[in-house]
Amino acid sequence: MAEYIVGIDVGGTTTKFGILTTTGENIGKWKIHTHTENDGKNICSHIKSSIQEYCRENQIPKSKLAGVGVGVPGFVEEGSGMVNNAVNIGWKDYPLQSTLEELLDLPVFINNDANLAAAGEYWQGAAKMETSTLCITLGTGVGGGVILNGDVVTGPSGTAGEIGHFLVVPHGRICTCGREGCLEEYVASKGLRRSLLDHLRNPAESTQLDKSSEAIDIFKAAEEGDRLANRIVNEATYYLAYVLANTVVLFNPEKIIIGGGMSAAKETLLQPLVAHFKRFVLTEADQHLSFGFAQLGNDAGIYGASWLAAKRLGYIDD
Amino acid sequence: MAEYIVGIDVGGTTTKFGILTTTGENIGKWKIHTHTENDGKNICSHIKSSIQEYCRENQIPKSKLAGVGVGVPGFVEEGSGMVNNAVNIGWKDYPLQSTLEELLDLPVFINNDANLAAAGEYWQGAAKMETSTLCITLGTGVGGGVILNGDVVTGPSGTAGEIGHFLVVPHGRICTCGREGCLEEYVASKGLRRSLLDHLRNPAESTQLDKSSEAIDIFKAAEEGDRLANRIVNEATYYLAYVLANTVVLFNPEKIIIGGGMSAAKETLLQPLVAHFKRFVLTEADQHLSFGFAQLGNDAGIYGASWLAAKRLGYIDD
Repeated sequence: MAEYIVGIDVGGTTTKFGILTTTGENIGKWKIHTHTENDGKNICSHIKSSIQEYCRENQIPKSKLAGVGVGVPGFVEEGSGMVNNAVNIGWKDYPLQSTLEELLDLPVFINNDANLAAAGEYWQGAAKMETSTLCITLGTGVGGGVILNGDVVTGPSGTAGEIGHFLVVPHGRICTCGREGCLEEYVASKGLRRSLLDHLRNPAESTQLDKSSEAIDIFKAAEEGDRLANRIVNEATYYLAYVLANTVVLFNPEKIIIGGGMSAAKETLLQPLVAHFKRFVLTEADQHLSFGFAQLGNDAGIYGASWLAAKRLGYIDD
Repeated sequence: MAEYIVGIDVGGTTTKFGILTTTGENIGKWKIHTHTENDGKNICSHIKSSIQEYCRENQIPKSKLAGVGVGVPGFVEEGSGMVNNAVNIGWKDYPLQSTLEELLDLPVFINNDANLAAAGEYWQGAAKMETSTLCITLGTGVGGGVILNGDVVTGPSGTAGEIGHFLVVPHGRICTCGREGCLEEYVASKGLRRSLLDHLRNPAESTQLDKSSEAIDIFKAAEEGDRLANRIVNEATYYLAYVLANTVVLFNPEKIIIGGGMSAAKETLLQPLVAHFKRFVLTEADQHLSFGFAQLGNDAGIYGASWLAAKRLGYIDD
């Protein structure tokens, strides 16, 4: 009888796999290179052969697999099973669900990778049992996922949770989405780098940072008391706190989870963030709210993808 | 056998009642004055005697009533059944659910009035069958309700959907919530009045509007081409569009419904609002979205309150 779910997290360079039980225990994981050539047309057959190979080597018969969940970095329509647009993969109007279902002969469920990272933390990580959770991933850009009433919020275009594209600065920095002043141009690692370069135009401000410093160096310097670094971190956490306070007014979550590379800065990030947040937030909306860091790291995606399939197949109650 | 639900909409001056079938047909409605004296301590007994009287007069036996839903203008914790704070009623940390259940000997479910107005429009009004809907009510202030995956979003403090307290202007106008720059200080009837008074300080701008003009007069004057009125409407719809675009990025609804007194301005409100919105919104999030006006008017609350009880009692599927 079927008892395992395959969770897949498709990324621009690596595709991660996990075999999980329907109750969320990870019994194996591996990864392969993502071949994005030819608009990613070969990815699905690579996924198929990789699963077959892993199952053969680990003596997992096909009959043990109940279904497959897949997270994709882009706009994904769970309802229609289509990937609207995933620029780093090459998929545009791509019927991912039906393509994989045909190849694997298993039920397949798809969603956005940041949504599923949130679902992973909700199922087996930092937000376990919190029925309303906001997860933000601070990496190169800012990803987000919203869990409400025990399910992931997707929306008809699959753009729900795109907190990185929250507009914060009128006529601000140009974003990759084509608009001006999106949050991720100020707070993600690319945003911090842009702030650094802006500030370094005034050489008097520069201390231990220079043009080649990375986002994580900025946090390190801030921790060591560097004035410019603290100014950049202060500005970034101000914008992020503003967005979180407005998000909290709309959803009233119980938990805000911070993940992604920049979350390694821990208290250097969290302390100014929470200080700004407390000044912005509607008091009543803050009463039952707490902040936390993600716990599943790079595995959040495969947990969340497995959760999606387990949930849609009826293994997880509301 | 039980077949009716009582929907109650408690307001600062009037409490509205409706008797609805579990499938949403309204078979009777009435209203009474809300006695807010003594911190609203007598409201529940007035509700009880009013229901008893109506049922006696209309020959509805108690056995026909399945349950009661109540909407309250304030922060309501549906889970604990407590009204956290309803300033216009006088209830603070008030156990509304248990008080009414004891008096009525019926299951009672409570929620925020704007959330339930949204649920009413979702059940029997302008957003029928739209599984993800945002409703905004433009009255004296700005109320909001969010429907996702077929249920109302409430949050542990009951503050979800409080879109009127979305911060739009740094160090802006002082709001009744104690913070600065909340949306409702710029776009609701009180906000439009504040904008008018601000602008009238410069007498050259004044045309057919004066200090005593109401919000609806501003829309009327705008329609007739009054420059000042158009400037005020343009400013208000700019802020509202900014908030809606950011809200849409967060949860990607299918429908935005506009209700409340100011929605009477129809196209004079909607046309500049949508124009600003199209400039702000993330293209992908706008693909499956449409705007509409509320259809249930002042009855939205009793429909939504009935929906809440019918839903929680299992009469409505997901």
